[in-house]
Amino acid sequence: MALKLYELLGDDDRRFSPYCWRIRMALAHKELEAEIIPCRFTDKAPFAFSGQDRVPVLQDGDAAIADSWDIACYLEDTWPDRPSLFGGAVGRGEARFINEWLPILNRPVLLTVLKDIFDHCHPDDRAYFRDSREARFGKTLEELHAERETHRPAIETAMAPLRAVLAQQPYICGDAPAFGDYIVFGVFQWVRIISPLRLVEPGDAVYDWRARMLDLHDGLGRSVTAYPE
Amino acid sequence: MALKLYELLGDDDRRFSPYCWRIRMALAHKELEAEIIPCRFTDKAPFAFSGQDRVPVLQDGDAAIADSWDIACYLEDTWPDRPSLFGGAVGRGEARFINEWLPILNRPVLLTVLKDIFDHCHPDDRAYFRDSREARFGKTLEELHAERETHRPAIETAMAPLRAVLAQQPYICGDAPAFGDYIVFGVFQWVRIISPLRLVEPGDAVYDWRARMLDLHDGLGRSVTAYPE
Repeated sequence: MALKLYELLGDDDRRFSPYCWRIRMALAHKELEAEIIPCRFTDKAPFAFSGQDRVPVLQDGDAAIADSWDIACYLEDTWPDRPSLFGGAVGRGEARFINEWLPILNRPVLLTVLKDIFDHCHPDDRAYFRDSREARFGKTLEELHAERETHRPAIETAMAPLRAVLAQQPYICGDAPAFGDYIVFGVFQWVRIISPLRLVEPGDAVYDWRARMLDLHDGLGRSVTAYPE
Repeated sequence: MALKLYELLGDDDRRFSPYCWRIRMALAHKELEAEIIPCRFTDKAPFAFSGQDRVPVLQDGDAAIADSWDIACYLEDTWPDRPSLFGGAVGRGEARFINEWLPILNRPVLLTVLKDIFDHCHPDDRAYFRDSREARFGKTLEELHAERETHRPAIETAMAPLRAVLAQQPYICGDAPAFGDYIVFGVFQWVRIISPLRLVEPGDAVYDWRARMLDLHDGLGRSVTAYPE
């Protein structure tokens, strides 16, 4: 098997990285198989060969590509005749906009679920995760957890354009999903895997989109350890 | 001439509607000529035939299309062999995301320049503009003007993804402009025409993009009454 994807592993075989999920979906979209190699925050040995510090890393023979955006571009350019992730140059340019917009959604979600991530980290990673995140945010995980509801307005603001688009078309990328959808789906799948938080409820166009995304590629997104729907 | 574009007119021949600018640029992109018919907020008689309440309205023979998004789709679908506004189905889907994201930028900018718009409204429109906007926002134009700086953080937050994208590629849509660029350019052109406000300064990737946008289509954006650079 030529391709290997190095991705983050939590407890109970939880594969929770939103950036790795972008690539899982992108590989399936491109009808490519890859050997999935689970890694931990504190054991980078499996992908040390790549010179990279963070997953996802895609290995294709002697090539190692890091960063989910760059991996998506590599997949698109290396297999141009397979189903397109971008649908052309304009689609790729605009997908980059979605990629750069994403922190507007990602950051308040991260602050909301940080303690949940800790709870589902691989046991060997928990001390590292606590220390690094508490240093980054200047608060304990428990303090962040206590104030998690304060991020809801920012999440709702970020969700507004998604809701408006998905009320008009089934996918962010139009009638069919493409990498722009996978960028956003990563956040929802991450939450679904590590937190009881419900970002969306039935009756919401984003909820229906999420269900469609979970159905894609033979239910790939549903096939993993996650919180019940 | 088959096509007619009904657009908003201010004082000194200022054509300031951001939504009309999207269509001016889209027509030029499609290499289409249109007769431009200036209208006022309080005189909808010129486009009353269309049954529409707001410009832009595009007239193509017996057809009248309103709403800048629908007009762009009409242009794309009616002249598919001319330079594409979307670059395909994915590009169209993602452009809709940009269209629905746009209020995040548009709203704080509107609140910042509302008094400037009033100052450059057609004289016959000023009373209507004051009454309708003061009713909508629950404050006088002068009160809104006094607090205009309070919207700067929201503008900067909205600008962040633009800045990040345009640091990596010359246009929002990639290596060449498309409708996603025109959606965003409308805001910058609107401000340039009716306000001394500087949304971006030299050295900012968004400033350089704006300059490229103003150069497009034989300098169409620079060809109109506006504040000095």
